[in-house]
Amino acid sequence: MTDYDPKDWFRYLISFDRSDTARKLAPALLAMAAYCSAVAWFVIEYVHPGPDSDLKNIAIMHSLLGFAISTLLVFRTNTAYDRWWEGRKAWGSLTNNSRNLALKLAHILAADDHDSRTFFRAMIPNYATALKNHLRGQFHAADFVVCNGFDPANVKPDQHVPNQMAMRLFSKMDELYQAGVIRAEHLLVLNGEFSSFTEICGICERIHTTPIPYSYSSFMKKFIAVYCLTLPLGYVLSLHYWVIPVVIFVFYVLTSLELVAEEIEDPFGTDANDLPTERMAQGIRTAVGELL
Amino acid sequence: MTDYDPKDWFRYLISFDRSDTARKLAPALLAMAAYCSAVAWFVIEYVHPGPDSDLKNIAIMHSLLGFAISTLLVFRTNTAYDRWWEGRKAWGSLTNNSRNLALKLAHILAADDHDSRTFFRAMIPNYATALKNHLRGQFHAADFVVCNGFDPANVKPDQHVPNQMAMRLFSKMDELYQAGVIRAEHLLVLNGEFSSFTEICGICERIHTTPIPYSYSSFMKKFIAVYCLTLPLGYVLSLHYWVIPVVIFVFYVLTSLELVAEEIEDPFGTDANDLPTERMAQGIRTAVGELL
Amino acid sequence: MTDYDPKDWFRYLISFDRSDTARKLAPALLAMAAYCSAVAWFVIEYVHPGPDSDLKNIAIMHSLLGFAISTLLVFRTNTAYDRWWEGRKAWGSLTNNSRNLALKLAHILAADDHDSRTFFRAMIPNYATALKNHLRGQFHAADFVVCNGFDPANVKPDQHVPNQMAMRLFSKMDELYQAGVIRAEHLLVLNGEFSSFTEICGICERIHTTPIPYSYSSFMKKFIAVYCLTLPLGYVLSLHYWVIPVVIFVFYVLTSLELVAEEIEDPFGTDANDLPTERMAQGIRTAVGELL
Amino acid sequence: MTDYDPKDWFRYLISFDRSDTARKLAPALLAMAAYCSAVAWFVIEYVHPGPDSDLKNIAIMHSLLGFAISTLLVFRTNTAYDRWWEGRKAWGSLTNNSRNLALKLAHILAADDHDSRTFFRAMIPNYATALKNHLRGQFHAADFVVCNGFDPANVKPDQHVPNQMAMRLFSKMDELYQAGVIRAEHLLVLNGEFSSFTEICGICERIHTTPIPYSYSSFMKKFIAVYCLTLPLGYVLSLHYWVIPVVIFVFYVLTSLELVAEEIEDPFGTDANDLPTERMAQGIRTAVGELL
Amino acid sequence: MTDYDPKDWFRYLISFDRSDTARKLAPALLAMAAYCSAVAWFVIEYVHPGPDSDLKNIAIMHSLLGFAISTLLVFRTNTAYDRWWEGRKAWGSLTNNSRNLALKLAHILAADDHDSRTFFRAMIPNYATALKNHLRGQFHAADFVVCNGFDPANVKPDQHVPNQMAMRLFSKMDELYQAGVIRAEHLLVLNGEFSSFTEICGICERIHTTPIPYSYSSFMKKFIAVYCLTLPLGYVLSLHYWVIPVVIFVFYVLTSLELVAEEIEDPFGTDANDLPTERMAQGIRTAVGELL
Repeated sequence: MTDYDPKDWFRYLISFDRSDTARKLAPALLAMAAYCSAVAWFVIEYVHPGPDSDLKNIAIMHSLLGFAISTLLVFRTNTAYDRWWEGRKAWGSLTNNSRNLALKLAHILAADDHDSRTFFRAMIPNYATALKNHLRGQFHAADFVVCNGFDPANVKPDQHVPNQMAMRLFSKMDELYQAGVIRAEHLLVLNGEFSSFTEICGICERIHTTPIPYSYSSFMKKFIAVYCLTLPLGYVLSLHYWVIPVVIFVFYVLTSLELVAEEIEDPFGTDANDLPTERMAQGIRTAVGELL
Repeated sequence: MTDYDPKDWFRYLISFDRSDTARKLAPALLAMAAYCSAVAWFVIEYVHPGPDSDLKNIAIMHSLLGFAISTLLVFRTNTAYDRWWEGRKAWGSLTNNSRNLALKLAHILAADDHDSRTFFRAMIPNYATALKNHLRGQFHAADFVVCNGFDPANVKPDQHVPNQMAMRLFSKMDELYQAGVIRAEHLLVLNGEFSSFTEICGICERIHTTPIPYSYSSFMKKFIAVYCLTLPLGYVLSLHYWVIPVVIFVFYVLTSLELVAEEIEDPFGTDANDLPTERMAQGIRTAVGELL
Repeated sequence: MTDYDPKDWFRYLISFDRSDTARKLAPALLAMAAYCSAVAWFVIEYVHPGPDSDLKNIAIMHSLLGFAISTLLVFRTNTAYDRWWEGRKAWGSLTNNSRNLALKLAHILAADDHDSRTFFRAMIPNYATALKNHLRGQFHAADFVVCNGFDPANVKPDQHVPNQMAMRLFSKMDELYQAGVIRAEHLLVLNGEFSSFTEICGICERIHTTPIPYSYSSFMKKFIAVYCLTLPLGYVLSLHYWVIPVVIFVFYVLTSLELVAEEIEDPFGTDANDLPTERMAQGIRTAVGELL
Repeated sequence: MTDYDPKDWFRYLISFDRSDTARKLAPALLAMAAYCSAVAWFVIEYVHPGPDSDLKNIAIMHSLLGFAISTLLVFRTNTAYDRWWEGRKAWGSLTNNSRNLALKLAHILAADDHDSRTFFRAMIPNYATALKNHLRGQFHAADFVVCNGFDPANVKPDQHVPNQMAMRLFSKMDELYQAGVIRAEHLLVLNGEFSSFTEICGICERIHTTPIPYSYSSFMKKFIAVYCLTLPLGYVLSLHYWVIPVVIFVFYVLTSLELVAEEIEDPFGTDANDLPTERMAQGIRTAVGELL
Repeated sequence: MTDYDPKDWFRYLISFDRSDTARKLAPALLAMAAYCSAVAWFVIEYVHPGPDSDLKNIAIMHSLLGFAISTLLVFRTNTAYDRWWEGRKAWGSLTNNSRNLALKLAHILAADDHDSRTFFRAMIPNYATALKNHLRGQFHAADFVVCNGFDPANVKPDQHVPNQMAMRLFSKMDELYQAGVIRAEHLLVLNGEFSSFTEICGICERIHTTPIPYSYSSFMKKFIAVYCLTLPLGYVLSLHYWVIPVVIFVFYVLTSLELVAEEIEDPFGTDANDLPTERMAQGIRTAVGELL
C-alpha cells in the first residue's frame, strides 16, 4: 500500500507514480489516440459530411447511455471497494483477536510458564504470517518464528498452511486443557478467538477466489469498448480535431474506474493499492510480543 | 463458474463464449434489428415526414425516462449481486464451520478413535454435498461417501436431504456425549458450528426460492420493452438508417443487465455465472480430510 | 406470492394479471388520458401559441427535476425492497430456528417420550401459524394443531397470540428442566432458538407497523402529481396530440414504482407480491414433523 | 408519528396538515416568490436583454450541477432515513428484550413470588419510559409505576435516569441470585437481555446527539441557496413571468428533501415524523403485564 | 465537533466559520478565478472565435462526464461518511460497554470493597482517555486518573498505550478471580465487555490508518482538476465573462465535496467535523462515577 497524505492535492496533480492509472493505461490511451486521429482525419478530409449529416446524431446514443455507463461504473467501484474494505476488516479483526488472545493467555498462563508463553508468542503471529503468504500463493518457511513445539520444516507447503498453524495452536491449547492449566470456563472464553482465526482465513479466501461474476466483467468491458470506439464518430463533426483529446479523456476516466476496481477487488497482493498485510502481520508480532 | 483473469481485456472483447449475453440475446437482437429496419424503412420511404414533424420529439420521452431506466437497472444489478454474494458468503461460512468442526473434533476425539474420526471425515463433507444437490433439486446417492453409521441407501430422497444429514451428525454427537467422550463444555463449543449448518442451508434456500418480487420483474420487462420499441420512432428522423445499430446497442445494454441479474440472483445452479458449489463441496472434503 | 419464471419474458409482456400495476392504475391512467386530451385540445385548438411561446420552456423544469424524481423513486424502491427482504429473512430465520430446535429436542428427549415429542411437534409450528395470522390481524383457532397441554380454545384472541404460544413453549421447557430431562448445558444451547422466536416476531411487527415516514410518502405523491400534471403543458407544443401517450407512459412508470413500493413495504399480507407466509408456516410443520 | 394509509393518494394531494413541508416552508416559498418576481420584473421591464444574451446561458450551470444536487439530496435522505430506521430498530429491540425478559422471569420466579413479579412488572416498562423521556430531555416522576423496592422520588433527575433504572433492575437480579432464586445458568441466559438495555440506550443517545457532520449540513444549505437564487437569472429569458412558479416548485422540491431529512434524522422527539416512542413504551407495559 | 442547530438555515447562509469549505478553499478559488479570467480575456479579446467555433462543443465532454463526476463524488461522500459513522458507533459502543461493565461490577464487588471500586472507577475511563490520545498520536500522562494499582508514570509511551490499560484491567480482574471475588459465571458475563475494549480500539485504528485506496484519491483529484480547468474553454463562448463566477461555483461544489470527505474519513482528530472524543471520554468518566 502506498502511504500518502490525502490533503496534498498539488503532489497528486503532477505525480505519475507506478500505480497511476494514466501510466498503466498509457498503451491503451496511445492506441485510442491513433484510432481517433485516423477516424477524424478520414471523416474530415475524405467524407466531407454536410452539417446536417446523420453522423452527428449518433451522439444521441452516447447521451442516452451516458447515465447507464456511469451508474454501472459506480456500482463496480462500490462492490470492489466493499471487498477491499471487508478484507481490511478481516485483517483488523485478526489483529484484535491476536491481541485479545495474548491478553487472556498472559493471565491464564503462570508467569513462569516460559515454555507456553514462548510458544504462543511465536505461534499467534505465525498464523498471520502464514495467512499473508497463503493469500499470495506463496510459502516461505523462513518467515516463521521457530519455537519449542513448532518447526517450520514440518509444515507441508502443498497442504493448507494456515490450517496447519491453527492445528498446532489447538493442539497446544488442548494439551494445556488436559493438564488443567486451562479450565472449562477459560475454554469457553478462548473459543471465540480461536474460531475467529479460521473464519478470518475463510473470509480472505472468499474475497481472493471470487471475482465479480464473469458476465458483468465481460459485459462492462464490451460496453466501454463499444461506447468509446463510437464516440469519435458521433462527435467528429462538432469537434473536428478537438475530438481526439476529448475522447481520450472520456476513455481515460471510464477505463481508470474499471482498472482501479479490478485492482482493489483482490486486495491481498503486493500492488500499490493492496492492503499492507506484510506490515499488519509484523504489527501483530510486535503487539503480541509486548503483551505476552 | 467460469474462471477468468479480469485483467485480460483483449480476450473479453473478442470472445463470445457460452455465457456471453450477446450470444444469449442473439434471437432477441435479430428480432429487434428486423423491427427497427421495418420501422425505418416504412417511415423513410412511405411517410416522408418533414423536418419539423412531431415524431422527432417522441425522443423527449426517452430522454426523460433514460435516467429512471438506468437507475432501476442498477438497483436490479445491485440486489441480484447482493444475493449472489450472500450465497457466496453462506458457502464460505459452510467451509469455515466444517473446518472449525474438524479442527475441534480432531482434538476432542481420542487419536485412536478411528471409528468416530472416519464417521466425521465422511459426514461433514457429505452435508455440503447434500446441500449442493438439494439446491439444484437433485439427489445422487453416489455422491455421498459411505461410512460406518451412514448408508446413503437409507436417505429418503423425497424428504429434506440436508436435514437428514444434520440429523445423523447430531445423533453421533449425542451418542458421544452420552458416552462421556464429549463433555458439557465441548457441547457449548461445538453447538455454534452445528447450528450454523442448518442456518446456512436456510440462507441458501431463502435465496433460491425467493426471486425479486413479481411486480418489479414484470414492470422492468414491460418498461424495457416499451422503451426500446418506441426508440426507433423517436430517432428515425435524426438517424435514418443509422437508427438500426444505435437501437440494437441500447437494447443490448438494457437487456443484458436484466439478463445477467436474472442469472446471478439464483446462484446455485450450473450456469457460467453460478457459484462453484461443486468445487467448494470438494474443497471441504479435502480440508476436512487433512485436519481429521 | 405469485410464482413465476423470471426468464419467460414473453409471458410478461402480454400478461396483465391481478397484480399488474397497469391494471391497478387503470382508473388513474384513464383520468390522466382525459386530462391530457383536454389540455392538448384546449392549447392546440384555442390558444394557438406561436412556436416561440414560453409554454414550451416549462419543459425545462421537468428536465431539471427528472433526476431528482428518478433518484427519489429508486430510494423509495430500495427501502421498500429492504423491508421486504428483511421480512423474508425473518421468516427464513424462523424456519431455521424451528428446524434447529426440533433437531436438538429430537436428541435431548428420550425416544419414547411420546408426550413431549407430540407437544413440540405441534407447538413449534403453531408459533409460525400464530405469527402469520397475527401479522394479518386475524385469529383462527382452527389453524392450530391441538396437542396434550395445548388447547386453542384457551388462547385469548384479544391478547398477543404469538406471545401466548411462546409462553406455552417456555412452560413446557421449564417443566422438563425441573424434571431433569433438560440439563443446564442444554438450557444454554436451546436458549438461542427460543429467544429468537420473540425476536423474529418483533422484527415482523416492526416492519408491519412502521411505514416510511409520513412526510416522504406525502411529499413523493405531491411531487409525482405536480410533475405529471404539468408535463402536458410543457410538451404539448412539441408533440401536439402525441403528448397524450407520452405523458401516460411517463405517469405509468413513475406511479408504478411508487405503487409497487407501497405494496411490498408491508410484505405480510395476501397480495400477489407478499411473502408466502402461509406456505412457509406449512413448510415448518412438514420439516418439524420429519425431524421430531 | 402520524398514522396514515399509504394507499390513499387522493387525501395526500389535497391535505396540508401540520407536518406538510409546503406549510412549514410557506414563509421561505413566499420570500422566494417575491425575489423571483422582482428579478423577472427587473430583467423584463428594464434590462430588455436580446434573445442572444449570455444571461440565458447561466442555465448551463444549473444543468451541470442539477445532477450533483439531486444525488446529494438522495445521499442526505438515505442517511437520515437510516438513522430513523436504526432508532426504530433499537426500540423494536427494546420491546423484544423486555418481552423475552418477562417470559423468562415468569418461569424462573416462583408462581407465588408476588413481590418479585410485581417489581419486574413495574420496572421493565419503567426502563422504556425513562428512556423515552431521557431522549426528549425531560423528566416526569409521575410517568413511572411505583412498586415495592422502587420509589420515583429517589430518582435523581440530574443524573442519567435510564442508568438508575438499570441499576435498580440489576440490584434486584443480584439479590435474587444471592438468594439462590436465580441460578448460574439463568444468569448467563438473562445477561443478554439485561446488557441489551444499556446498549439500546447507547444507540438512541448516539443517534440523538450526533447530527450529520456540520460541514455537510452547512455546505448543502449554501449549495441549495446559491442554486435556487441564480435559477431565475438563468431562466427568466426563456420563461419570462412563468419563471416564478417554476423556480418556486424547484425550490420547494429541494428544500423539502433537506427539511424532511433534518426532521427524521433525530427521531425521538414529538414531531409528526418522529417515532411513536410514547405508544411503544405503553405497548411494552401491556406486553409485560400480560406475560408476568 | 462543532455543535449546531441543523434547522437554523439563515445562520448557515451568512456564516463562514473556521470549518467552512469556502474559507479553506479560498486560495484555490482565487487561483481558479485568476485562471478563468485569463482564459476568458485571452479568448474574447485575442482569439475572436466565430459563433460556430468548435471551442463551444468542448462542453459536450463536460456534459458527458458530469454524470460520472457527480456519482463518483457521492460514492466518495458515502464511504467517508460510513467511516465517520462507524467511528461514532465504535465510541458509542465504548460508552455502552464501560457503563455495562461498571453496572455489573457494582453488584459483583462487595459494597465495602473500596479499593477495587476506586480502581475500576479510575481505570475504565482511563481506557477511553488512552484511546482518544492514542488515535491523535499523543500521550499525556496527566490525563489519567491515578489510583491504587495504577501509576501513569509506569506507562511506556513508546508501546501501545491502550493495550497497557487493558492489561492492567485484565490483571485486576484475574486477581479478583483468583481471590474468588469474581466467579466462573461472572467471568463469562464480563468477558464480552472486556474483549470489546480491544475490539473497539482495533476498529478505530483501522479507520485511522486506512484512507481510501490511493488510486481513487489520486484519480479523483486529477479528474476534478482536468474537468474544471477545461470548463472555461468550453463555456467562454456562451457565457463570455459570466464564465468566471459559473466555473468558480462549479469548482467550489466539486472540491468542497472532496474536501469534506477527506476531513471526515479520519474522524478522530480535532477538526471541526471530527468526533467529540474528548467530550465522550469525559462522559464515560461521569457515567462510571455515577454507577460504581
